[in-house]
Amino acid sequence: MTNARSASVAGVVDFQPDAPAVYTFGGADPVAMVKPGQILRTFTEDCFGGAVRTVDDLPSRVCERFNPVTGPFHVDGAEPGDTLVLHFAAIIPARDWGMSATFPHFGALTSTHTTPTLQPALEERVWQYDINLQAGTVRYAARRSDFAVELPLDPMLGTVGVAPAGGEVRASIVPDAHGGNLDIPELRAGTTLYLGVNVPGALFALGDGHARQGQGEVCGVGVECAMRVTVAVDLVKGVTTPWPRIETDQQLISVGAARPLEDAYRISQHDLVGWVAELTGLEVLDAYQLVSQAGRAAPGNVCDPLYTMHAAIDTAVLRGATAYGGVHRRLRGLAATLW
Amino acid sequence: MTNARSASVAGVVDFQPDAPAVYTFGGADPVAMVKPGQILRTFTEDCFGGAVRTVDDLPSRVCERFNPVTGPFHVDGAEPGDTLVLHFAAIIPARDWGMSATFPHFGALTSTHTTPTLQPALEERVWQYDINLQAGTVRYAARRSDFAVELPLDPMLGTVGVAPAGGEVRASIVPDAHGGNLDIPELRAGTTLYLGVNVPGALFALGDGHARQGQGEVCGVGVECAMRVTVAVDLVKGVTTPWPRIETDQQLISVGAARPLEDAYRISQHDLVGWVAELTGLEVLDAYQLVSQAGRAAPGNVCDPLYTMHAAIDTAVLRGATAYGGVHRRLRGLAATLW
Amino acid sequence: MTNARSASVAGVVDFQPDAPAVYTFGGADPVAMVKPGQILRTFTEDCFGGAVRTVDDLPSRVCERFNPVTGPFHVDGAEPGDTLVLHFAAIIPARDWGMSATFPHFGALTSTHTTPTLQPALEERVWQYDINLQAGTVRYAARRSDFAVELPLDPMLGTVGVAPAGGEVRASIVPDAHGGNLDIPELRAGTTLYLGVNVPGALFALGDGHARQGQGEVCGVGVECAMRVTVAVDLVKGVTTPWPRIETDQQLISVGAARPLEDAYRISQHDLVGWVAELTGLEVLDAYQLVSQAGRAAPGNVCDPLYTMHAAIDTAVLRGATAYGGVHRRLRGLAATLW
Amino acid sequence: MTNARSASVAGVVDFQPDAPAVYTFGGADPVAMVKPGQILRTFTEDCFGGAVRTVDDLPSRVCERFNPVTGPFHVDGAEPGDTLVLHFAAIIPARDWGMSATFPHFGALTSTHTTPTLQPALEERVWQYDINLQAGTVRYAARRSDFAVELPLDPMLGTVGVAPAGGEVRASIVPDAHGGNLDIPELRAGTTLYLGVNVPGALFALGDGHARQGQGEVCGVGVECAMRVTVAVDLVKGVTTPWPRIETDQQLISVGAARPLEDAYRISQHDLVGWVAELTGLEVLDAYQLVSQAGRAAPGNVCDPLYTMHAAIDTAVLRGATAYGGVHRRLRGLAATLW
Repeated sequence: MTNARSASVAGVVDFQPDAPAVYTFGGADPVAMVKPGQILRTFTEDCFGGAVRTVDDLPSRVCERFNPVTGPFHVDGAEPGDTLVLHFAAIIPARDWGMSATFPHFGALTSTHTTPTLQPALEERVWQYDINLQAGTVRYAARRSDFAVELPLDPMLGTVGVAPAGGEVRASIVPDAHGGNLDIPELRAGTTLYLGVNVPGALFALGDGHARQGQGEVCGVGVECAMRVTVAVDLVKGVTTPWPRIETDQQLISVGAARPLEDAYRISQHDLVGWVAELTGLEVLDAYQLVSQAGRAAPGNVCDPLYTMHAAIDTAVLRGATAYGGVHRRLRGLAATLW
Repeated sequence: MTNARSASVAGVVDFQPDAPAVYTFGGADPVAMVKPGQILRTFTEDCFGGAVRTVDDLPSRVCERFNPVTGPFHVDGAEPGDTLVLHFAAIIPARDWGMSATFPHFGALTSTHTTPTLQPALEERVWQYDINLQAGTVRYAARRSDFAVELPLDPMLGTVGVAPAGGEVRASIVPDAHGGNLDIPELRAGTTLYLGVNVPGALFALGDGHARQGQGEVCGVGVECAMRVTVAVDLVKGVTTPWPRIETDQQLISVGAARPLEDAYRISQHDLVGWVAELTGLEVLDAYQLVSQAGRAAPGNVCDPLYTMHAAIDTAVLRGATAYGGVHRRLRGLAATLW
Repeated sequence: MTNARSASVAGVVDFQPDAPAVYTFGGADPVAMVKPGQILRTFTEDCFGGAVRTVDDLPSRVCERFNPVTGPFHVDGAEPGDTLVLHFAAIIPARDWGMSATFPHFGALTSTHTTPTLQPALEERVWQYDINLQAGTVRYAARRSDFAVELPLDPMLGTVGVAPAGGEVRASIVPDAHGGNLDIPELRAGTTLYLGVNVPGALFALGDGHARQGQGEVCGVGVECAMRVTVAVDLVKGVTTPWPRIETDQQLISVGAARPLEDAYRISQHDLVGWVAELTGLEVLDAYQLVSQAGRAAPGNVCDPLYTMHAAIDTAVLRGATAYGGVHRRLRGLAATLW
Repeated sequence: MTNARSASVAGVVDFQPDAPAVYTFGGADPVAMVKPGQILRTFTEDCFGGAVRTVDDLPSRVCERFNPVTGPFHVDGAEPGDTLVLHFAAIIPARDWGMSATFPHFGALTSTHTTPTLQPALEERVWQYDINLQAGTVRYAARRSDFAVELPLDPMLGTVGVAPAGGEVRASIVPDAHGGNLDIPELRAGTTLYLGVNVPGALFALGDGHARQGQGEVCGVGVECAMRVTVAVDLVKGVTTPWPRIETDQQLISVGAARPLEDAYRISQHDLVGWVAELTGLEVLDAYQLVSQAGRAAPGNVCDPLYTMHAAIDTAVLRGATAYGGVHRRLRGLAATLW
């Protein structure tokens, strides 16, 4: 665990990464140790490793690898069968610009490596967005006309995960049961992410900040942006979490990752039905019915090696049920003390 | 055109259907004529033909056919190559109860006719919902425990379509380019639906009201409810609409229908990218980029013969662009005069 | 039933079609009547309606519609719940040439109407094949080099079906439970096709001859060729057939049609497992196991509105089980008397 | 490299594995070194690790892990960008019995981990097959009746692969571009497998022998059997192979692995089109056309984490083209000298 710039003071671990970052979940030694109940403050580079800085920096030319993540972090006491709890207290753009791009044979409206056709690739093109933290906006500007428009700033992390099960090591671009490149805009500040622990220490890592992204990330790339991230870390011992889950102040969210997209839908809805049944005591078909009428669903990405969808339900509908012993509310309170 | 109970007075066509209803798009004679600019007032039965009235009425026993639609209506002057405009001024539950059910081998969390497995079917079970128009609620009540909860009333029509192209006749349960069983909750009062016309008179029909449904309609059935519907009908001559589109006061929405689900996503996003390019003058990759960051997406159904997804963007983002010559705003105004 | 050139003599119905052909299953009046036990001799045009005759005849320019079928034929006594039996005694190329093509946005290695991308279409190009009945070959000749090679002649019908259930009318390019555009090379002379009857008279039609095609029909088009077809027609009363089935002298074959392709696989394997269980008395999991080790599978088309796969098993493995009362062997014998 | 029982004499490396085997591609140290041109003789355990020996040994009870592979083997001089050549001189059942099973939530005709439903799992049941090397048969025996039948013995390896690219480590049950759990019956003795090298030494491993399997492996499990394997190992320097390829005396075969199944089809056909174009000098659309009419296709598995399909074409059609410098014929000759 070599980490010259990590400091742990009064419940806060501050980790400022040096190059090189890691590009996998699993397969790397931890860069720092975090204890349950501690706050982690760190920095995540953008998916281009910061190498795309103008619209003339074509990713295929200036990048050798994609999607670096900061970590992995060893969580003291985490064991397989536990649930890692990551409450995102803050996700703040570290620069006043973000970049997006079309990338050859990547995205939902192009043939790809795994949906190959004989057609030529789309043009590789880069867009630069101005980020205005005060105004809370990101500015889109067209490349082939003078059209420009302000969009709401909505910072999120595209990639958060733990080391996978079964000794696997997965590229950071892959989302799956271990989390990873979920690319779902619901992973914004104020939310709590639950991930099942597969190896001692959990070994979580995070990155791929987006100043915002559309649902499905149709061109394959969000408004990519380095982020300053503050995470409250906790652990629920002896409780498994088979697929990533998110809690907000109003909602419970299950995430599925699969192809075809209906399987990501099935996984997320199936997990939510089981979660609702467990929290409310509803028999499973009764829970299925309730989710059928009260549930929401949306794609995270429809471009990565596995697609993601989330299934959500308002906690109000569950008549006071509390998930994971109320850890979300507790960490929300803890985060509030940081400012 | 035999329709004893249709009356056309002062711009309003009132059509109260007699049994038998129709169960297809295409293949049936029109029940009434509507002129562009007129208002249609009518009634739609629920997807069970009204035969499921208690939790003991199992659909597989009491129903012979599913998803009756009211119509078809002949729109005066509609020709292939035109766009039919249906503005939903009102969709109001006609009863103070709605029904839902699990149905054998139908839904997203069961094997089905086209995703067969060797497992037995799920139990067929019926749920009854109380609908309270004043309170704006539908009341879910579990069947195997005393759990009950009020959900927001959000009436919509699951099925609206025209006669298909190429001489095809499709079962009313099928969604496709002609509309049909889209089952997307965005089709609520206050919105305008655009459908390409394939045959003279368009021959539109509508039905399958839901007091509300979750996104994806995971168990395969919404809160099924007969509806009183008021539609302002109009026509855009000489403009084609390849896939269903919806306009609300704030959004433009494209709808795709396909399997696997990613193709419904691709169709809807592809249509929206082209629509945005056309309305804004953006070059197509510039429009792709804008939709990638500003677009929304969600499933309508993940249970019907084709799955549906919608792609949406705020009209505010398009800097004043107006779709279909502003017909939505015009019909919105017309609808306002009805009360 | 207007059919000036149909003659029924001594158990043989001879039908030589006049234009216009039909382009749907369902929705058309029968062109001739056939009795169970009779032989039908007829002609089928190619999928281009015969309009593509040189490599300069681009289909998108010279064709208005695609995939004409000959029929529909009314089978005397056929009722819903019966199984129509079509034994193909002969499928013989009617010309000494066949045509193939790439067609814009059609095929497996291009984006399509339902898998849209923003890439331009592939070039539309036509290939002409020489057919040599004596040698039993079709000659491929490249368009951009002097490479040429003889391939085995293997004539088949791409499209055979009945009127669909539920009052539906489907375009002739669609395969589904009613048969239609199955595009599976197993439908060659010497085989027997079983189709469930949905409407009185069955109303079967056939066409889309291929001098040969690869498995999956990857470019979307076979070696398209007009055919002279001889079919022995029979009926199995009171026996339903939910998906198309084929019997050869050595094999039983079930056909599924669906998207995604794994669902076509599931449907065909599921049908074959049930069929094997029924014929052998094997308990269903025992039949599942036998098919798992002894079964074969291949795609028919991976380009049409629904994809097709077949599941096959050698009848030898079934220890003497006889399907549909031995009608295949009987018609095979009958066909032998025709020469 | 600890391997007490490995011996390299006169061009032959003999490796008899000790427990524990490995369960991943990548992430393990090599067990032996093989030089290009050498023969490897080794043993592979069955997918149950040999723990299922009677029909009462339910895999979920007696197995902790699945699909052990023998290796990895370090190939001297192999570098990223090369192609590893594995010619299977012999694949011989090491026991006179093989086992198959249904396994809970695994297989094509059941809901699964990634296609979840609310239905209960199928019964877990084991079948034992007698293997008769002399007769060349495997004997199926039903569990719920006295039906039994001899099937042709057709030994193959289900799992052969190299360490993946990008530092990934994949479970041995996963097929992908690195090979792995392809489960395609074409991988029998007499064939040559080509795999792209991703890491120094290639680090190939192999296992999962099947006495035979059906196409698609519909229940998820073949006739699992330990194997004695003889492999001629070679290397083609400086030639990349993006997806697994197989050469037989008559055919060239490309393999794709993906979900949904049509993407496995697309990948394999796309690779074969490019391979044919390269070997024959055909322009790419001309090659597309040739493969469209002359190509074959079939599923390997439709049950593993990624599905596999192969695309095949007769080398005779390619007018004498020779793949990879004729290494298949050379190794075929070398293998013939071993007996």
